[in-house]
Amino acid sequence: MSSITRTKSYITANTGEGDSINYEVSNEITNEVVSPFHDIPLKTPVDDIFNMVVEIPRWTNAKFEISKAAAWNPIVQDTTSDKKLRYVKNCFPYHGYIHNYGAFPQTWEDPKKKIDGGDIISNDKIDRKADPEKEAGGDNDPLDVLEIGSTVASTGQVKQVKVLGALALLDEGEIDWKIIAIDVKDPLHKELNDIGDVEKYCPGLLKATKEWFRIYKIPDGKPENKFALFGKPQNKRHALKIIEDAHGYWETLFEQRPPPEAISLVSQKSKNEQPPESDTQTEAKAPSSEDFNPKWYFTGSAEEEKKFNFNRYNIYV
Amino acid sequence: MSSITRTKSYITANTGEGDSINYEVSNEITNEVVSPFHDIPLKTPVDDIFNMVVEIPRWTNAKFEISKAAAWNPIVQDTTSDKKLRYVKNCFPYHGYIHNYGAFPQTWEDPKKKIDGGDIISNDKIDRKADPEKEAGGDNDPLDVLEIGSTVASTGQVKQVKVLGALALLDEGEIDWKIIAIDVKDPLHKELNDIGDVEKYCPGLLKATKEWFRIYKIPDGKPENKFALFGKPQNKRHALKIIEDAHGYWETLFEQRPPPEAISLVSQKSKNEQPPESDTQTEAKAPSSEDFNPKWYFTGSAEEEKKFNFNRYNIYV
Repeated sequence: MSSITRTKSYITANTGEGDSINYEVSNEITNEVVSPFHDIPLKTPVDDIFNMVVEIPRWTNAKFEISKAAAWNPIVQDTTSDKKLRYVKNCFPYHGYIHNYGAFPQTWEDPKKKIDGGDIISNDKIDRKADPEKEAGGDNDPLDVLEIGSTVASTGQVKQVKVLGALALLDEGEIDWKIIAIDVKDPLHKELNDIGDVEKYCPGLLKATKEWFRIYKIPDGKPENKFALFGKPQNKRHALKIIEDAHGYWETLFEQRPPPEAISLVSQKSKNEQPPESDTQTEAKAPSSEDFNPKWYFTGSAEEEKKFNFNRYNIYV
Repeated sequence: MSSITRTKSYITANTGEGDSINYEVSNEITNEVVSPFHDIPLKTPVDDIFNMVVEIPRWTNAKFEISKAAAWNPIVQDTTSDKKLRYVKNCFPYHGYIHNYGAFPQTWEDPKKKIDGGDIISNDKIDRKADPEKEAGGDNDPLDVLEIGSTVASTGQVKQVKVLGALALLDEGEIDWKIIAIDVKDPLHKELNDIGDVEKYCPGLLKATKEWFRIYKIPDGKPENKFALFGKPQNKRHALKIIEDAHGYWETLFEQRPPPEAISLVSQKSKNEQPPESDTQTEAKAPSSEDFNPKWYFTGSAEEEKKFNFNRYNIYV
């Protein structure tokens, strides 16, 4: 149960110029570029353990993500609408991201599908009719993972993580599942086997996680995010079903020719089919050092003030 | 009122070897070493604005402090009882220190004195008799400052800060005032003039500050800290009186010949009197990179669980 056969290793190279950083993922043995979206296997020999690609290390702000559009899907820093490199603001009392944030390879949250884990939800006695937001489609990205282990990971790192549960974020109206997992090398991983163990061994972490995702875009002038399923953290069984669904949607995606707009399937697995012309990555303007202010934003809403004494926030920017 | 005459500039040089870091502070013009304890002036032309020496930047863990014992009082990293460099652990949900932490030059919390701001306290209608901890003496260090501005400072930086209030920490039984202040270059400084403004513009910060100082030594196996004066944040008037008292105790200290044990008065101001033999700084053993684990510690006590819903903690280490 606890031993994992690791069949491949991956290395990450920084291929950006100046302040613009791209991470290219390669097979460590052959030094051939691989796609972290398509080539790195999702599954391991253990049912609840999966490979995860780290995009954003804990306590950092640069919004790195697997590029769907670029050939070989390098990990690139997202850009803002005015073509500057994107940094997530620090929302008090947090510093940068509070998890090692990343994605499951070989998964896709299809915007045309409800990714809700199907009948698992009704089995959990959640009244689906009472939650109109359940109809939201996927966010058109690989499935996100929050790795809660004690090390600070690095961008591009491939970790084996044990799945513990899930949160159904509604990020600007799209459903955007956050799978909660822990690195199997973490000293705590043997104690954590389902969502209830997270509250037991890391008290406050689930509440902080929900608060973080609720407020993190407010300093950028966006509304606070909401959660589907009443914000209830879902258990491991539900999380595994969501991963299985998202893996299935990716499999269907990967067979499409031509691929959907702005998605590159160029990979070892696809025998390196040439990218379509639209595949060229927009160059991000290198930001000046003044572009990111490491301040804390005191964010929130009056509505939340009543509910949580500790979580009173105002915008003072 | 808002313009400050800056009479001198200071620069900081890293004079440590290997992983052991010392910061030596020098006059920028003459390049002569100065003592941040004795030579940098406390006062500015504005009554509520003082010079502050930054020891520990926000979101960092290395416990830098002005060395009382070493000649010229360089800023050195504290060491543990087993001679390793000291790092403050990360207590969830915080990352490192949550303020730019430092000290006021030319101040001293005399261990033989109660530094309580005198009759200010009774004026504030706090029942001194009800608080037996008020008798605790000073912690034998320069007066500590928590700078709450939005920039991340650097070790050795000299800032001008506006005083806003104070917290009376009891750190392992010694009274250890934490003066709350803001950099006068901060965009928010004009809005912040007394302790009540901190809660208004930075909601949650005072509560987080108290929690942080309560729990920060728990991962090192020490008990949680307590506060004198019932933990009530004191106002600016009280804070100014504490600074005035601590400045007076420093003036008395600075005249003592020979100086008290383990305190060096070597400085420009003292005409560079030679250090006594006991003044040599103990060399810290350079830690291996494994020595500091950037994990989060979930700390706290059952007693606090009842009072604060959000602040439930258990030790899992």
